[in-house]
Amino acid sequence: MAKKQRTAIEPTRAENYPEWYQQVIKAADLAENSPVRGCMVIKPWGYGLWENIQKVLDRMFKETGHENAYFPLFIPRSFLQKEAEHVDGFAKECAVVTHSRLEADENGVLQPTGELEEPLIVRPTSETIIGEMYSKWVQSYRDLPILINQWANVVRWEMRTRLFLRTAEFLWQEGHTVHATQEEAVEETLKMLDVYETFARDYLAVPVIKGEKTAAERFPGAVSTYSIEAMMQDRKALQAGTSHFLGQNFAKSSEIKFLSSEGQEEYAWTTSWGVSTRLVGAMIMVHSDDDGLVLPPKLAPRHVVIIPVIPKEEHRDAVTDYCRKLQGELLGCNYGDQPLRVELDERDMRGGEKVWGWVKKGVPVRLEVGPRDVENDAVFLGRRDKAAKDRQTVSRKDLLQSIEGILGDIHEALYQRALKFQKENTKRIETKEEFYSWFANEKESGFVICPWAGSAELEKEISTETKVTIRCIPMDEKKTGTCPFTGTENAPMAVFARSY
Amino acid sequence: MAKKQRTAIEPTRAENYPEWYQQVIKAADLAENSPVRGCMVIKPWGYGLWENIQKVLDRMFKETGHENAYFPLFIPRSFLQKEAEHVDGFAKECAVVTHSRLEADENGVLQPTGELEEPLIVRPTSETIIGEMYSKWVQSYRDLPILINQWANVVRWEMRTRLFLRTAEFLWQEGHTVHATQEEAVEETLKMLDVYETFARDYLAVPVIKGEKTAAERFPGAVSTYSIEAMMQDRKALQAGTSHFLGQNFAKSSEIKFLSSEGQEEYAWTTSWGVSTRLVGAMIMVHSDDDGLVLPPKLAPRHVVIIPVIPKEEHRDAVTDYCRKLQGELLGCNYGDQPLRVELDERDMRGGEKVWGWVKKGVPVRLEVGPRDVENDAVFLGRRDKAAKDRQTVSRKDLLQSIEGILGDIHEALYQRALKFQKENTKRIETKEEFYSWFANEKESGFVICPWAGSAELEKEISTETKVTIRCIPMDEKKTGTCPFTGTENAPMAVFARSY
Ligand SMILES: [Zn+2]
Ligand SMILES: [Zn+2]
Repeated sequence: MAKKQRTAIEPTRAENYPEWYQQVIKAADLAENSPVRGCMVIKPWGYGLWENIQKVLDRMFKETGHENAYFPLFIPRSFLQKEAEHVDGFAKECAVVTHSRLEADENGVLQPTGELEEPLIVRPTSETIIGEMYSKWVQSYRDLPILINQWANVVRWEMRTRLFLRTAEFLWQEGHTVHATQEEAVEETLKMLDVYETFARDYLAVPVIKGEKTAAERFPGAVSTYSIEAMMQDRKALQAGTSHFLGQNFAKSSEIKFLSSEGQEEYAWTTSWGVSTRLVGAMIMVHSDDDGLVLPPKLAPRHVVIIPVIPKEEHRDAVTDYCRKLQGELLGCNYGDQPLRVELDERDMRGGEKVWGWVKKGVPVRLEVGPRDVENDAVFLGRRDKAAKDRQTVSRKDLLQSIEGILGDIHEALYQRALKFQKENTKRIETKEEFYSWFANEKESGFVICPWAGSAELEKEISTETKVTIRCIPMDEKKTGTCPFTGTENAPMAVFARSY
Repeated sequence: MAKKQRTAIEPTRAENYPEWYQQVIKAADLAENSPVRGCMVIKPWGYGLWENIQKVLDRMFKETGHENAYFPLFIPRSFLQKEAEHVDGFAKECAVVTHSRLEADENGVLQPTGELEEPLIVRPTSETIIGEMYSKWVQSYRDLPILINQWANVVRWEMRTRLFLRTAEFLWQEGHTVHATQEEAVEETLKMLDVYETFARDYLAVPVIKGEKTAAERFPGAVSTYSIEAMMQDRKALQAGTSHFLGQNFAKSSEIKFLSSEGQEEYAWTTSWGVSTRLVGAMIMVHSDDDGLVLPPKLAPRHVVIIPVIPKEEHRDAVTDYCRKLQGELLGCNYGDQPLRVELDERDMRGGEKVWGWVKKGVPVRLEVGPRDVENDAVFLGRRDKAAKDRQTVSRKDLLQSIEGILGDIHEALYQRALKFQKENTKRIETKEEFYSWFANEKESGFVICPWAGSAELEKEISTETKVTIRCIPMDEKKTGTCPFTGTENAPMAVFARSY
């Protein structure tokens, strides 16, 4: 048996993928569980990622004509009651506020008092409360479109939680728009899906499949739900963003009506779309390796870290001066339209420990600088997309000229690696036998593209049997085929996978 | 009786200040009440202000070494129970979550089910939950300082709410830092107070008095609380930001201990500091006039609005082309380190209505452009710090050269006007009689600077009698005097005022 190579993260992906995921997060100091059930604490390195995601998406939303606003955290029960009337066996896992006061009882124990006349629900999503406001704001076609986004926290009482992927409280953005025509609302729905796809590709370096959900997976109340689906390194799918065309359904339940230019009273057409801190989980699971986090350069809190290597005290001044000067020069460089984010790690600890710390934190470029490098006016450069030991000496001059290109290369390398993995683990299947035997291997099965013309019931049956769901009907797939489950010809293709 | 001049806002400030405030917010479309008791909806124009406030403060926090993180929305009851043990008659107006599920009963009415073993409180502030995390993160002096800020929503069950000034839910930032020494923690507390003062002066254009709170007004658990206090146009004070030196009190209740460099186990020293959406209320009340909102230019969602004036259809093309070209040129200009934010208002409505709309929204510079202006290659310029009718023709060339200067002048004019008002309404008083007779006039009394050596009890007595409180012991005041209430000599000066 070959001697196992030591990795910074144990277990490795191959050994235990879910545990590897937790350990990557821990080693990178991204987040941790809090004493509040299912709620996470997002630590500075993890929050820095989310801030960078927010900045880019916020700019993209504004460039597509949206504005931000803020709506209440609480939703009166009566608003959900309206929804419940249309949903059989309505039950919602959510945080319910029933009292407005804490008061010490005779034993000094704080007890909830001041019972509310109507319970309030901590928003799991804001369609109902935003719809209520929109119904007041929209009177005439001149008030349309409304193109509003909200950055907010939401709460869903999840039983089994996992950092970033599924937490009781999470951070997200929810866009809610209102339009005078169906055509315009559909266009908006697809435009924002495209924004998500572009963001995933150009910033997360994550290839996604864009498509429409089947009826079984549709957002309740939506006419159509679209999503972007990404493949994780365990070959499971993760839904990374959704965009819903709500038709006139929400306009009707919220009474969003307007007087058209022809003087006709009409219900408006609405959309909603969102992504969340789940994106951080996707980013981790697509790119990271057995040495820890690997960050796509455009979203990394730091692009470059400089690590002074000081073997003897006599070298300290020369190395430190050189590193500080180098940091100044790098801070003057750009990556895309952003100034370079450069950390100089002057902490008082062993060089090797520092280097591994930054490997585990996923910083795209590491520059080690020792006395010999100073003499040669050069740095020892490591790229996080390559093996930790695979480093090379680069002259300072070359570094300054090539750093933007290097970061661009890393982005491209991560994207291409993920795309290759996705393609290698996607199979076209045309028979039921092949379908079931492929998914019989729980560990190695990935995406299956297969013609589909089944009902929601049949979809549910298959999913109960195999734990596989239809992720979407991909939009970039033009071919059709014979559905192996129903025999229907010219059926559109569907993407099947196990999923998060 | 002179004929009353028509104003865009009715009532005027003089007629009914609180109602004027509500009408300014409504006319500017900043925010409105929601169907959820005490919770407001912040509309895009109001949220744009808050976004600009966030951007600037976030940069200032980062420049002073802080990072952002995110902690849970909920606080377990047991965390507040610890606090309650030290506070007599503890009672907290807060939102208490007691159930985790909504389920339809036999009549289809949604009922809270899934009662929690321990109630959760929606955070009114996060000292306890953050302290719990810090106690795990801090082991050694090498882990210090911790310099973390959080942007978040918080909830306090207020009975009487007013948009931006006092709402059940509001948005804020809360800084929470941990230090190895008292000296460093005190330095941090005062540094952040300075950040707030600088922000108020240089961005809000609001002069503030910086000082320490008396024991009666101190944050529970703090060793010392500092604040910045601003004078509104009704001469009342508004506390616009606070910074607390918490000593070792919170470290002791949260068990934040560290091993010093000498190998000694010690309790850490902590601080906390915050500002909220209340700042938007302060900004409105300090600068706005009887024609509506007046925005300090650096925070305005738009610096400049261009309003095409098209008397006849035949003018449309020439005027529109000219305005679009002008917008392009202005977008290429800067104000401070920011590109100019320029709106071209091409809506299909009467010119006069548009102009008044932008006056009420407080945009610093309005440019009206009609056919004559196009011929003369000029614009008709109105400044929001001057009367709405006080406009002048400026050549396009001069405009492009002077726009940054004009915005700077507006900022300065707003600041100086507010400072003059504050000074004119601040009185130095040395006798009890004068004190009581000054504050007998509820409408016209402003700030009083008076020597003070009284107890917390005496302060409470005075406040019960007069509705006046000590806002702070101003830090920039070096004089002392004889306290007229106690006769104590060499007493420090205190600022007394009615307040929000
Ligand atoms: Zn209905
Ligand atoms: Zn205690």
